[in-house]
Amino acid sequence: MRRLRVIGIGPGGIDQITIAAVEAMNTVDVFLLLDKPNGPRDLRARMLERYVDRPYTVVAIPDPPRDRTPSDYTDTVARWHHRRAELIAEAIAAQPADAVLGILVWGDPAIYDSTLRIIGLVEQLGTLLEVDVIAGLMSINTLTAAHRQVLNSVGGAVHVTTGRNLRDSGIPPGVDAVVVMLDAHCAFLGFPDWTLFWGANLGTADEVIRSGPVAGIGDEVVRLRSELRERVGWVMDTYLLRAPDPAEPVAPSPVPGFARPEGER
Amino acid sequence: MRRLRVIGIGPGGIDQITIAAVEAMNTVDVFLLLDKPNGPRDLRARMLERYVDRPYTVVAIPDPPRDRTPSDYTDTVARWHHRRAELIAEAIAAQPADAVLGILVWGDPAIYDSTLRIIGLVEQLGTLLEVDVIAGLMSINTLTAAHRQVLNSVGGAVHVTTGRNLRDSGIPPGVDAVVVMLDAHCAFLGFPDWTLFWGANLGTADEVIRSGPVAGIGDEVVRLRSELRERVGWVMDTYLLRAPDPAEPVAPSPVPGFARPEGER
Repeated sequence: MRRLRVIGIGPGGIDQITIAAVEAMNTVDVFLLLDKPNGPRDLRARMLERYVDRPYTVVAIPDPPRDRTPSDYTDTVARWHHRRAELIAEAIAAQPADAVLGILVWGDPAIYDSTLRIIGLVEQLGTLLEVDVIAGLMSINTLTAAHRQVLNSVGGAVHVTTGRNLRDSGIPPGVDAVVVMLDAHCAFLGFPDWTLFWGANLGTADEVIRSGPVAGIGDEVVRLRSELRERVGWVMDTYLLRAPDPAEPVAPSPVPGFARPEGER
Repeated sequence: MRRLRVIGIGPGGIDQITIAAVEAMNTVDVFLLLDKPNGPRDLRARMLERYVDRPYTVVAIPDPPRDRTPSDYTDTVARWHHRRAELIAEAIAAQPADAVLGILVWGDPAIYDSTLRIIGLVEQLGTLLEVDVIAGLMSINTLTAAHRQVLNSVGGAVHVTTGRNLRDSGIPPGVDAVVVMLDAHCAFLGFPDWTLFWGANLGTADEVIRSGPVAGIGDEVVRLRSELRERVGWVMDTYLLRAPDPAEPVAPSPVPGFARPEGER
């Protein structure tokens, strides 16, 4: 069984990696680079250069081409994932049997990242792997640090979601703090009376943050976002939305439609 | 204006701190220890010993006594917070004007931690501070790493809440993944058909994890939890609950009662 270490390297700063991740990197013989288009690959290269003190190999596994004119979208995506897993399985099979393999993942592998699902597919294809995961800092953490914010109101809940969910489904009742990731379409604009705490390319030299009512700074953030993409070549942003009038402390109150605990203990 | 650095040191492991946090610790002249009862103080001491290479002072600021027979609970808590902030302000005033101050916070200062709110109170009392925050890994991250789990279903949302909220308000509609922190009363027991991914004292030598249906492992987790507290002296646990039948991908569907974006863009 081959050993594969999936290592979270944090959201962008060279210093936002943990000691545990650095130690894990120093046990890896072969780093697999699962490239994504526009992936900010150079952070990984810089981290290897800065933190690894032993010989290692880097194997790039480019994404297979996607069918751009799919007749059945779901089927096309499934075939693409399958092809991707096959390429990774081949790359793994080509390594010495006793080599420790590693994958560096931006942020934390546990949130809005496909690496662990792809590795699951690779295993389903018959590659026996002993996988361990080293947690990484999320952009959520650096966002709140940059804004000196506590995510939750006193005793309150925090909802973490995507721009698409926010646009399509809105915010659940009773939630006064929402963290949004993966939002290319600035869904915050739909909530003009909420307060926005926004950050892009956090922890890098190009970090930009803004905070204020959406009605006041929303358009500026849209502009900053596209300027950053143009100037730096990529943009990774995340934001926190706070309800217009967050009463503190938030009294948790039963809301119809919630899944209820069965009985009292 | 005095400089105060609030430094997240991760959820328990000596190696779960970031390089940025270690570098920040090495700029601090005076560490303020805001002690809590049962606080696992020794991690902070061990981190100072392991990671700091320059002279520093540690100033312990014990919690003021709480009135145990309050006539008005809210008022008592407010007075206690005020008294606590006063003690911290006094301790800060006693330091040299150019000393860099630091506070080490378990996990991340941004989630279910009172440090940033207390510092806000200290500022309200008239202490001028230049505060910066260094993000730390949360127990959420180490929990999911230990279980090799991705928090979100494909495109799905994640709800982060407290045991009390879970017990009192349940789970919002449409949410298939819930992370619970601060749950001394094992509120997961109210959701027997959900799947539990539980971890305690994560990243330490005493780490315990369990996963399975609540109906199957719930009672064992209750037992493990109290055994751990008895044996080690403290227990810090967190868990992920997954909906009984998480369809993947989760189709985001509008749910009545949600705050809706205003208009379409």
